[in-house]
Amino acid sequence: MSAFPPDSPSTARRLPLPSPFRLQAGGTLVEAEVAVETYGRLAPGRDNAVLLFTGLSASAHARSHADDLSVGWWESMIGPGRAIDTERFFVISVNSLGSCFGSTGPASPNPVTGCAYGADFPELRVEDIARASQAAVDALGIDRLAAVIGAALGGMTVLAHAVCFPGKARALVSISGALAASASAIATRSLQREIVGSALRSGADRASVEQAMRWARKIGILSYVGTELLEKRFARHQSEPFAGHPSGTEFEVESWLEHVAQKFVRQFDPWAYWTISRAMDLFDFGAHGATPDGDAVVHAHADSDVARAAAFLKVERALVVGVEQDLLFPVEQQRRVASVLRAAGIDTGYVELNSPYGHDAFLTETQLFTPVLAGFLQDRGSATSHRSRRAPDSLSR
Amino acid sequence: MSAFPPDSPSTARRLPLPSPFRLQAGGTLVEAEVAVETYGRLAPGRDNAVLLFTGLSASAHARSHADDLSVGWWESMIGPGRAIDTERFFVISVNSLGSCFGSTGPASPNPVTGCAYGADFPELRVEDIARASQAAVDALGIDRLAAVIGAALGGMTVLAHAVCFPGKARALVSISGALAASASAIATRSLQREIVGSALRSGADRASVEQAMRWARKIGILSYVGTELLEKRFARHQSEPFAGHPSGTEFEVESWLEHVAQKFVRQFDPWAYWTISRAMDLFDFGAHGATPDGDAVVHAHADSDVARAAAFLKVERALVVGVEQDLLFPVEQQRRVASVLRAAGIDTGYVELNSPYGHDAFLTETQLFTPVLAGFLQDRGSATSHRSRRAPDSLSR
Repeated sequence: MSAFPPDSPSTARRLPLPSPFRLQAGGTLVEAEVAVETYGRLAPGRDNAVLLFTGLSASAHARSHADDLSVGWWESMIGPGRAIDTERFFVISVNSLGSCFGSTGPASPNPVTGCAYGADFPELRVEDIARASQAAVDALGIDRLAAVIGAALGGMTVLAHAVCFPGKARALVSISGALAASASAIATRSLQREIVGSALRSGADRASVEQAMRWARKIGILSYVGTELLEKRFARHQSEPFAGHPSGTEFEVESWLEHVAQKFVRQFDPWAYWTISRAMDLFDFGAHGATPDGDAVVHAHADSDVARAAAFLKVERALVVGVEQDLLFPVEQQRRVASVLRAAGIDTGYVELNSPYGHDAFLTETQLFTPVLAGFLQDRGSATSHRSRRAPDSLSR
Repeated sequence: MSAFPPDSPSTARRLPLPSPFRLQAGGTLVEAEVAVETYGRLAPGRDNAVLLFTGLSASAHARSHADDLSVGWWESMIGPGRAIDTERFFVISVNSLGSCFGSTGPASPNPVTGCAYGADFPELRVEDIARASQAAVDALGIDRLAAVIGAALGGMTVLAHAVCFPGKARALVSISGALAASASAIATRSLQREIVGSALRSGADRASVEQAMRWARKIGILSYVGTELLEKRFARHQSEPFAGHPSGTEFEVESWLEHVAQKFVRQFDPWAYWTISRAMDLFDFGAHGATPDGDAVVHAHADSDVARAAAFLKVERALVVGVEQDLLFPVEQQRRVASVLRAAGIDTGYVELNSPYGHDAFLTETQLFTPVLAGFLQDRGSATSHRSRRAPDSLSR
């Protein structure tokens, strides 16, 4: 509890997890930790905390602060007067367990061997990311969160958190998430894992592993970004060969793809990518249930039942946001999340945005998300009625 | 002309191309040939020939015949009483120049060196595929085609043929084609070429090249097949590990993808894949023009003008077909093809089909294409009026 005094300003820390930290699939981590940043001040009643989950590749650095002035991944969404208003909320942003930006992951040294886990990192699930983050919330002495918010993987993690910790949050916001990955998303991600895993397992040299990561990331990017946007920005313009590309590029869209892939590869650990990607495909909200004695239990996928799982939820309000052009987490999945929450009696707002950025819209078109999220967080009444009352014209259901 | 007597039954041959055969980008092939199959009988007036262009990966074997009883890639569309009725039409199906099923391509021996062309195969354009096929038509003594038909790459080749050989065909049918590739299609295909080209250029062993081809093909398949279909067929069902997969698979969609990719890799030459894929990205209908003296000229992409190119067309009727769920050749591109043809004064029918198979629909949902194509080919009047008169309920504009 002492790690973050209630009146601390924005800050970045690593918080130790309970050791051993048991994972859902049976593995164990010892001396694990999570990297956490906070923005705003915890209210004396400790009732204004918002927990933020990230997408696959982000760090905990969601906005700039005194110790790290670099722009965060949700810079324009968090701050005084912003959608997640730090004058009002105490925001806890956590680097996912299994990632490589300060939280324990495959690139971290295994305390038992002294070497990086690599392939020996235990099987990670989305629920483990939720649990490690909740451990950080516990360490801060926060009994109940005002809201849990996340997009993409974070949108899945929000749902995992809600079913693993009923009553721990008053509200949830799931943006471009899913109750479980679609077949098409699994196909796209498993191919990325096959390429990266093949290089890693064959003991390939660093250049080959980086090449595999670049290819995997390009497949990923093509599943994130809207086709319409690529067309507007690049059409079929031809370009000068891009320095550093193995075979030269001839179209501008290729140069751009190469540039963003190279940037990513320099930052992200390959086994962490593999591990978190797989966790996304294994997530199954409907697998959650309880024994007759009330103990939590995870059913096999064949026995998945989203309504049964949703019956455990105790959030009061929810907001589900989807983007029409999102191919990876299509709006059908967002509608399904909203309808499952509503069927469980939760006051749920549903907003469908229109953005050529597709799945990436939550990162790039924050002006569309700002009124939606701000409205939901300001409203203390019904999410649904808020939705119909204040939705800007640019939004469509 | 003697290669196919007018009364020949269905047959498969290789026809020599004029030698040297000059390619659009400046290269030359000597002693090149194309593999051709024909179905039906050429009418005494030689006015009933239909030229068929294939997609990227198909051979000339579009339907079974006495010498090859295996099922062709458009088996159910061609034959007596079928959409392309061989009681009426003489169908000429050509394996694309640059491919590897009998036509000269990178896997063919270069007569100058005696070794396979490989990386030395000259730059191929979609127009070269059209020209090599037209050379086969010329060799048959056919002065004017009743129709030219193609889907995917074939849909592009139909447009290339129309602009390279004005007056050589009375009608055209372009299915899921494009005036030029979209940025998103270029990104998807160039990534495949990067992966395959990287293995080929590094002198990797056969297993590594096959691995690269499997990955490339998987990326391709994910761009062909509709996400809806994958969801219906596989959801997130888990499967037994697939024999032969390097790291084992855990989802059924992965096993399926591995299976279809392996099947392809055993059949298709890597450099042929690279070469034809690139030709698709370089195609630009609007680049075609003429000098003041009326000589054909190909402009730079920056000077592309589809209306100028369309002014050269001399087809009487056209049919453009798109599939709503096609991500690789989206319906916006199909509408554009139709509108450019109409603006050039061509009587053009446009049909948009709805199929979860997406880009692959022309191969798998032939029952949807049969009434559309049959109606167009039976009709001797207006394509547009045909469209509104007979379109089945399952079609929507």
